[in-house]
Order: sequence, then C-alpha cells, then structure tokens
Amino acid sequence: MTSEGAVCLLSGGLDSATAAAIARSRGFDIYALSFDYGQRHARELQAAVRVAEALGAKRHVTLRCDLRAWGGSALTADIPVPRGRSLAEMEKAIPVTYVPARNLIFLSLALGWAEVVKARRIFIGVNQLDYSGYPDCREEFLRSFEQTANMATKAGAEGGRFVIEAPLVHMSKSEIIRAGTALGLDYGLTWSCYTGGERPCGECDSCLLRAKGFSEAGMPDPLLAREG
Amino acid sequence: MTSEGAVCLLSGGLDSATAAAIARSRGFDIYALSFDYGQRHARELQAAVRVAEALGAKRHVTLRCDLRAWGGSALTADIPVPRGRSLAEMEKAIPVTYVPARNLIFLSLALGWAEVVKARRIFIGVNQLDYSGYPDCREEFLRSFEQTANMATKAGAEGGRFVIEAPLVHMSKSEIIRAGTALGLDYGLTWSCYTGGERPCGECDSCLLRAKGFSEAGMPDPLLAREG
Repeated sequence: MTSEGAVCLLSGGLDSATAAAIARSRGFDIYALSFDYGQRHARELQAAVRVAEALGAKRHVTLRCDLRAWGGSALTADIPVPRGRSLAEMEKAIPVTYVPARNLIFLSLALGWAEVVKARRIFIGVNQLDYSGYPDCREEFLRSFEQTANMATKAGAEGGRFVIEAPLVHMSKSEIIRAGTALGLDYGLTWSCYTGGERPCGECDSCLLRAKGFSEAGMPDPLLAREG
Repeated sequence: MTSEGAVCLLSGGLDSATAAAIARSRGFDIYALSFDYGQRHARELQAAVRVAEALGAKRHVTLRCDLRAWGGSALTADIPVPRGRSLAEMEKAIPVTYVPARNLIFLSLALGWAEVVKARRIFIGVNQLDYSGYPDCREEFLRSFEQTANMATKAGAEGGRFVIEAPLVHMSKSEIIRAGTALGLDYGLTWSCYTGGERPCGECDSCLLRAKGFSEAGMPDPLLAREG
C-alpha cells in the first residue's frame, strides 16, 4: 500500500518542523520543501535538512529562488533586524522582517510540486496567535489561497481538491512545543534565529518568541542546552 | 512627476509582449519580470530581454526558479512536445505543456516585487479564448488570485488593492496581434515556439496558434520574414 503524499513547507524553524511532524503522525509521505530565497544565512536550511532526515521525508527539495532580486525585507535586503523588542512592540505593526508575498510564493511553489506527485495536502507551520503581525499567517489568507489553488491547477479543474493544512494556526508557541515534543520531535535540530551566528542571538523577535514558548511550556530549549 | 509602476510578466512570447505594450500605452512604468524556470530553451528569455528594452522598461529581472526540481510538464521534464495537432485536438484536454501552478507561481512572485516598488497593477498576457486548455489562463482564476493577493500582503492588509490586469483575456490571437501592431510593437522581437531551434518549428501548438493569429489578422509574421 502506498501512503498519500503531503508537501510540507520546511523552513528549518520550530513551527514548520512541528507541522511536518504532525503530517507524518497522520501517516502522510513527506515531500519536504525548503527555499534558498536569499535569507540572511544558511543555518536554517541546514536545520531543514536535519529535520527532513529525522522525519524520514520521502524527498527533500531546497529550491533556489532569490528574492534579493527586489529585496524589501530585513531578511532579503540590507535592513537591520530589530533586537530586544517587547511583545507589545512586536504586535504594534507588521515588522520589517516581513518578506513581501513570501507565504503566497512558497505555497504556490508547493502546489506545483503537490500536483506533480498527486498530493492533495500542503502543510504549513503558520500560527496567527503568537505572531499576528504577518498577514500571510492568517487563516483567512490560507482559505483564500485554497480556493485560488483549485482554480489554478489541472487537478483542480478536473475536480481534485487541494487542502492547506495549518495545524498550528490557532496554537500558542508553548502548545506547539508541547505537541511536537509529544511526537518525539527534537527541537535541538531546528533553528529560529534571524541571524546566522554560531549560537542564536537571543534578541531578535524570533529568538524571543521561541524563548517565551519554551518558558511557558516549562521546558529547556534543547538547542540552547546542546550549544551551551 | 513619477508615474505609477506596473509589474509586467514577460515570457518573451507574443501575448505577454502585447500586454506589456498595453501597460506602457497606459502610462505605467514597466517592471518587467521573466522566469528562467527550466523551460526547454533560452530563446524566449533572450526575446524577453529584447522586448523589455524596446518597451523602455524601468527594470527587467529574469529570476531563476527551477521547476525541473519536480518536472511534471513537457516544458520542464523529458516529455515530448506535441506536434502538428489540429485546434480540435488542442482543445480536447489540458495539454502536456501545462506546467503545474505556473501562472500562480509567476503572479505570486510578481506580487512580491509589486509590493516592494509600491506598484498596484500586475499585467499578465493570458487569454482564454484561443487556448482554453490552461486552467490558470481563465478570468475566474485571476479574480480569485486578486482576492488572495490582497490578503497575503502588508499592502493589502493596510487597505491597498492589487489589480491583476489581463487585457488580452477575452481577445482572439488575431485581435491581440492587431492591438500590439497598432501600438508599434515589433513581433519580430518575440519568440513563441516551444522548441529552441534556430527557427520556430512551425508544428508545436504555440507555433500553430501564432500562425493562425497572423493569418487571421491578414499580416505576415515578422519573425518568419526576418529569419526566413
């Protein structure tokens, strides 16, 4: 018996690793997809390779698609990454680390691969609770994408239905960490920091939200334990 | 006075060149976007460079994004391109030259660039009349994309509205050729053939539809005149 495939967007971070672990726990063959899009460093892509391997992915593609061609984000242009912000500050406005249309671009590419391998599910690790700043992490965007996806494709025109699975969308960071831990996911394999030093910087929004999540989950972060 | 920008998807073919010429005639600054996505040959990308230059594009980006990573089309995998088909045969089913999710991928990337340069219009040269086979050339897909685009972006979340301009969507190939000719577009700069020989093959669907268009418009194809 061949299991059904699912394309899983895998950044190398904590959230997408958890979403992919959930896909695996539901019995899907994992087609892991990462993007070398000109982000500030390669550490998260190395983490994605480790996570894909740990999850026994059927295939892992790292696609190069250089969004530095137009920049427009602290992750793809020479704009400083904010440091040491409070949660209140983070929630005040869409941050400069927003990459224009990134999740739409990634989901569209995932859809292309899904159609080729006859997968109908795409897993994405967005969550709108702990970081509502990004418009493309909201459920309403995902549902709209799903409709568009079904009109954009041969499979959709022939009656197939693509489903965007965002199992974390309404979970807090600590709930995500507890869920992944329960599935045996080793968060020491993941990388969240926006900068690419030897150790996580501990001060960017991504490090701060990760630390808050582990703290609220009452667990040490295995990445810090390992590297400390 | 700075004119408003528009991102124009430019494949190097006849349709997208016409759509970009229409954008220019409406006074937009052209941000031309082409994709090196693993298509069978580079001739159409060379054509795109010529067209962008002829239209006085403000900038032209050719982005590499290799869809051969998963293939699934006669344009991105080792699947033969059909030859010598009648229109009736072409219209019977979605052809093997369909590239999974291609227009959705291209529009999503165009949207990212548009947001960065504060353009609100994206021009795409799809038409559903003369080649209804591709699901992602239909108006309903474009309107759905527009809605998704406005939810996917910071600009959309802040009240901006992106508009997908598909001026050719309900035109026949001969009407397109007449419109571009009236705007002074030199179709000798464009390339439509799916294969990459010295001269257009004259037998693939794209060559056949182009020939039919010029014939119905009562004009010689300047590309053939030039190369002949």
